[in-house]
Amino acid sequence: GDAKLGKAKASAQCAVCHGPTGISQLPEAPNLAGQVEMYLVKALNDFRSGARSNEMMTIVSKGLSDADVANLAAWYASVEVSVQAPQ
Amino acid sequence: GDAKLGKAKASAQCAVCHGPTGISQLPEAPNLAGQVEMYLVKALNDFRSGARSNEMMTIVSKGLSDADVANLAAWYASVEVSVQAPQ
Repeated sequence: GDAKLGKAKASAQCAVCHGPTGISQLPEAPNLAGQVEMYLVKALNDFRSGARSNEMMTIVSKGLSDADVANLAAWYASVEVSVQAPQ
Repeated sequence: GDAKLGKAKASAQCAVCHGPTGISQLPEAPNLAGQVEMYLVKALNDFRSGARSNEMMTIVSKGLSDADVANLAAWYASVEVSVQAPQ
């Protein structure tokens, strides 16, 4: 997917809950920053197909095209994440 | 949950796919590092109840107790994550 197009789409539809770079803005919404791209594509397609359901995502995903899914996954996966495990 | 107990449980059962600190070791497995704790609890419970299904997680989650779920969620959520969005 095209991360640039995904960034624009995300700011329009996803950022309100997931944040523009994928740091969750809501206690129920998962972080998406640096998530595995294939996992994001599968999750979005499962919401579109109904294999997975969620009050919000079932509705939001209906409006997404295959290209949107690919671009959104590319964008959030492209966010670099570094990790510090607690000692 | 108790992140220390969760860390031990994770290294036994989750790290093989999700990594000990939640950086995915497999192309299908999502990163869990620094994920939203409530989301992790919901995901694990949905796999346990069958509200959500996945070849691997449906099996793995069967063996988890409520305490395991709380501890695992606490552990992976406790991993600190910092984010750099691509310019």
